[in-house]
Amino acid sequence: MIIQLENGVNGEVLSSVEQELKSLKYKTTHVKTQYGSYLIGTGKRQFDIRKIGHLKGIKDIHVVSDDYKLVSAKWKVNPTVIDLGDDVKIGGGHFALMAGPCSIEGEENIMDTINLLKANDIKIMRGGVYKPRSSPYSFRGLGIDGLKLWHQLARENGIKIVSEVMQVSQIEAMHDYVDMFQVGARNTQNYNLLDELGRVDKPVMIKRGISGTIDELLHSAEYVFSGGNERLLLCERGIRTYEKASRNTFDINAIPILKEKSHLPVIADPSHGIGIRDHVGPVAMASAVAGADGIIFETHCRPEEAFSDGQQTLDFNEANQLIEKLRVLNSMAN
Amino acid sequence: MIIQLENGVNGEVLSSVEQELKSLKYKTTHVKTQYGSYLIGTGKRQFDIRKIGHLKGIKDIHVVSDDYKLVSAKWKVNPTVIDLGDDVKIGGGHFALMAGPCSIEGEENIMDTINLLKANDIKIMRGGVYKPRSSPYSFRGLGIDGLKLWHQLARENGIKIVSEVMQVSQIEAMHDYVDMFQVGARNTQNYNLLDELGRVDKPVMIKRGISGTIDELLHSAEYVFSGGNERLLLCERGIRTYEKASRNTFDINAIPILKEKSHLPVIADPSHGIGIRDHVGPVAMASAVAGADGIIFETHCRPEEAFSDGQQTLDFNEANQLIEKLRVLNSMAN
Amino acid sequence: MIIQLENGVNGEVLSSVEQELKSLKYKTTHVKTQYGSYLIGTGKRQFDIRKIGHLKGIKDIHVVSDDYKLVSAKWKVNPTVIDLGDDVKIGGGHFALMAGPCSIEGEENIMDTINLLKANDIKIMRGGVYKPRSSPYSFRGLGIDGLKLWHQLARENGIKIVSEVMQVSQIEAMHDYVDMFQVGARNTQNYNLLDELGRVDKPVMIKRGISGTIDELLHSAEYVFSGGNERLLLCERGIRTYEKASRNTFDINAIPILKEKSHLPVIADPSHGIGIRDHVGPVAMASAVAGADGIIFETHCRPEEAFSDGQQTLDFNEANQLIEKLRVLNSMAN
Amino acid sequence: MIIQLENGVNGEVLSSVEQELKSLKYKTTHVKTQYGSYLIGTGKRQFDIRKIGHLKGIKDIHVVSDDYKLVSAKWKVNPTVIDLGDDVKIGGGHFALMAGPCSIEGEENIMDTINLLKANDIKIMRGGVYKPRSSPYSFRGLGIDGLKLWHQLARENGIKIVSEVMQVSQIEAMHDYVDMFQVGARNTQNYNLLDELGRVDKPVMIKRGISGTIDELLHSAEYVFSGGNERLLLCERGIRTYEKASRNTFDINAIPILKEKSHLPVIADPSHGIGIRDHVGPVAMASAVAGADGIIFETHCRPEEAFSDGQQTLDFNEANQLIEKLRVLNSMAN
Repeated sequence: MIIQLENGVNGEVLSSVEQELKSLKYKTTHVKTQYGSYLIGTGKRQFDIRKIGHLKGIKDIHVVSDDYKLVSAKWKVNPTVIDLGDDVKIGGGHFALMAGPCSIEGEENIMDTINLLKANDIKIMRGGVYKPRSSPYSFRGLGIDGLKLWHQLARENGIKIVSEVMQVSQIEAMHDYVDMFQVGARNTQNYNLLDELGRVDKPVMIKRGISGTIDELLHSAEYVFSGGNERLLLCERGIRTYEKASRNTFDINAIPILKEKSHLPVIADPSHGIGIRDHVGPVAMASAVAGADGIIFETHCRPEEAFSDGQQTLDFNEANQLIEKLRVLNSMAN
Repeated sequence: MIIQLENGVNGEVLSSVEQELKSLKYKTTHVKTQYGSYLIGTGKRQFDIRKIGHLKGIKDIHVVSDDYKLVSAKWKVNPTVIDLGDDVKIGGGHFALMAGPCSIEGEENIMDTINLLKANDIKIMRGGVYKPRSSPYSFRGLGIDGLKLWHQLARENGIKIVSEVMQVSQIEAMHDYVDMFQVGARNTQNYNLLDELGRVDKPVMIKRGISGTIDELLHSAEYVFSGGNERLLLCERGIRTYEKASRNTFDINAIPILKEKSHLPVIADPSHGIGIRDHVGPVAMASAVAGADGIIFETHCRPEEAFSDGQQTLDFNEANQLIEKLRVLNSMAN
Repeated sequence: MIIQLENGVNGEVLSSVEQELKSLKYKTTHVKTQYGSYLIGTGKRQFDIRKIGHLKGIKDIHVVSDDYKLVSAKWKVNPTVIDLGDDVKIGGGHFALMAGPCSIEGEENIMDTINLLKANDIKIMRGGVYKPRSSPYSFRGLGIDGLKLWHQLARENGIKIVSEVMQVSQIEAMHDYVDMFQVGARNTQNYNLLDELGRVDKPVMIKRGISGTIDELLHSAEYVFSGGNERLLLCERGIRTYEKASRNTFDINAIPILKEKSHLPVIADPSHGIGIRDHVGPVAMASAVAGADGIIFETHCRPEEAFSDGQQTLDFNEANQLIEKLRVLNSMAN
Repeated sequence: MIIQLENGVNGEVLSSVEQELKSLKYKTTHVKTQYGSYLIGTGKRQFDIRKIGHLKGIKDIHVVSDDYKLVSAKWKVNPTVIDLGDDVKIGGGHFALMAGPCSIEGEENIMDTINLLKANDIKIMRGGVYKPRSSPYSFRGLGIDGLKLWHQLARENGIKIVSEVMQVSQIEAMHDYVDMFQVGARNTQNYNLLDELGRVDKPVMIKRGISGTIDELLHSAEYVFSGGNERLLLCERGIRTYEKASRNTFDINAIPILKEKSHLPVIADPSHGIGIRDHVGPVAMASAVAGADGIIFETHCRPEEAFSDGQQTLDFNEANQLIEKLRVLNSMAN
């Protein structure tokens, strides 16, 4: 159960509501976000709304049967719109494209990408400066200095930045240089990281775990929301299955299912979803038609020379074609 | 290696070619289909085409590195078109819709469906008369009598029939009453059934195994082709994964991958692919955009009363809407 | 619900019981096996045993909540013992070893194996004469002639035969030459084959599907039992997962779970379960300790020359060592 | 390639070796652990050992083809033995049992468990004070205070502690109160955590990821080793598959495969591996026979009242029986 509290409700009123719920054998958690104040009540027994509906400080009450509460569409029927500023929005009818290299490689690489984005009127650039690598001997990214350089060039060109944060200590370091934090597939259930991201007022895009369930992804989002941050996006990036003809099995089903279960925007990552350069396009198109609020994909001016993920990275010519096709598709859809 | 033989090549010439290949340490299999005559050569050692290129009776030679040969796109670059007669075609730019109930239930059920199809200018009706059921105590279909009734009504209304064949003994019984045989997901590797279907001159749509790989699906098609029947279609219907929010995980990746690897038409079955009535539409749309040559889906005038699969079956209103959307999408694509 | 009928109950009595159940809104199926006569009642509503307990012809009534009925341990608490004759038994404390080549290759291969078995006092030989192969161009087994030769040599040496049957038409051909039919992992849900095997009075060992669930395996056994044949064994042979370090993932959990859910003997196939020759032993030992009633494994005097599955086949020296270890383990267990 | 350096090799010598390797187009990483000093050389081209074998400061050179190097059995053939002090050892013939509750619940719960362990001569107690929970509203453990209390009671009774560390900041806090750190299945690829654990001189037991591959587990161990800590253990705890009859699918195959690939001890966790209280025993026994160096399992005096995981937790009576059976099994094995 979600109890929406009136803004600026004082502690006295709050604790009286908590007392009342306790007396009804409900365990409560108080959630204060950048937008609102909530009491989450969890308990087995049936709830009679009349018992507390009259209490002072309560704005509204929603009975949510899902295990996750705040990210559920059952209480918030209108889709959440993520606003990155400068009229860059995602969700609720705002379809967003995000593109860039797997790893940020340096000034030339950044500027090449920025120019591609500007030429296509794309406002958000993706790229990694901290790379989770299965081998400790592999390239692990340019780190914070790379991010600062990227941020400076992006700002000068009106481009927003989304980049992966791998650990708690990086949140503060990255905070001023990203417009959106990304939680990678290996950290979807890194609960301490999720808790901390609840304490910042920046959008967070959470990728589905490498073999995470749809339900686990929603619970991970619940962690950040209940930590205090409502500005969330969900990302389908393919799951691990027995099929090895593709890098991952892109779960197209997850898009309509997530849209039904949650009010949060759903982004598709076809690059990791199939992992085969020639087929990133069809999966991106399919995701858009299936209801995704945005597409994030990897592009590089010379994929064969990319520091990582070249086999699934589009060159700029391929990127231009895909972007054009997606634009046509959306124009038709509307 | 595939050696295309000239039509009407006589046994003497044939065996001389086989001798030559044997001398080159190649194991050969002779394949005679309704359209052509081939020698499949399998062997480890590199092949020097000049050694046999000159031989009498040889039309063309193709070196195919895939384990499957005849279904590979490496030797037959033009997409295969399946012609059901009366100008009903699938593949090579001919997009086909196939719809109907999970199980054929009787005359009223058949006529309701036929009328829906006619109203939407759909030429192919799907339905089961032999149902594979996990429990021996469940309804197993109307059998051959149901098929005969269905066939009579379909013929009267210019509708083609696709229906599942479960065992060798059913092939002959069903032969005159279906326009296309379907091999179900539980029989994808029923090699005796595939062998026998190679001996008929009717199109065969092979569904991917419940947890079959893309490679296994192509090998199953190779069985039928090498048995003598080139008229084949492949069908993606979702695979079994750990994710239980949907009945299966529809492998959208499989569509572009199959289209790249094989010259055969690829059909999508979103009904089994997601198994949730409300979400069949988005998966169908996604499949079309990803490159499917057709969509097969379940529809029933009263899904809640359907003998089977009601939870994933569209009612006629939903079916009409989906068909309209797919038409718009394809018109845009062209 | 399972209603055990008295032996030799006549049709009149039977139909009166069926009438009574029908009036209670139960759907009934009559099952007549080599050992007994049963009525399987399926229906949603709660059942009051007193309503029919008094009826003539009824020996006993068991309420079984599982979807599968006759193979459930809920009505038959004593483990089923499979008797192959000549005091060769499996289950209920009789631990059985079955060994032999993947494919029967000829007289020498058969005699080599028989001599190994005799030297180790093993009574059951495994081997394939019909091989399901993913490629139509691979060796498919010696067929019925190979089986007849094998049978003659086995009889002369007091060895029992278990071999895979792939299709209905093979049942009659193989019947007199095998002591146990094996249903392979690709045919676990070949329901027509299972139905027919219900009509023979020979033991049938059903392998778990390549990605079959424990529940599906029990349902497949229910098919054969309800077809009239109670002489059944279940076989765990590994399932398909994302892990590729082994051929399959041997599901050791399935052994205690199957033993809890069913009264049928459970056999383990470590050869296919791990698919790595050096590690077949540990998995075999683990299976025995986990409660398996028997082990079936592949052995060949020269695995590197085996027609198939050499990479997972033990040579005779390795086989001798494993058999000795299993004997010690069982002696300790008892 | 692994180049073992002589102890106390000075920087000058080190850099001359690095220069030499660089000239051979090898990328080098210097690894300094509590026991040795290594240079890891990674590069495509074949290596001629004579080119550097003579260099000063080099103790030995091992060509390791695996992607992981230091954890590979290819250079270190003798099994690693983990010494917790007071003659408590794991690996290399030292079979270890570790038992305790899922979550540490308080003094009574701790003492109950300690008494069980002492009565069975078990030296290592498991328990969580930081619990990764899929829902943010669930109990998350007693935290550091619970650990301190546990540590005090354990010390007084000669019991060693193994407990999960979830994030970098907990390492220092927990350091003095645990004898072994555990990395949980959700953090197997939390590379920052692994890096930091490389900087401590305490044993680290790394659990296989929820759907991690055997190869990924070895790479995760490589992270810690290359960070400076050689005191590592690997733990198989079941993987996520489509099968839902058990909580996870315990991968018994992983035990012999890990033992072959790596010199590190392999621990089995049957509690999470099957997740069904009645069947934890058979899986534990199977693991021991398959070659595990130890078993970690959950036990609680009143499982039905446990704060978490009660359904897979043995009561003390069941624990006593399992321990006795494992002792008998090992005595036989030796």
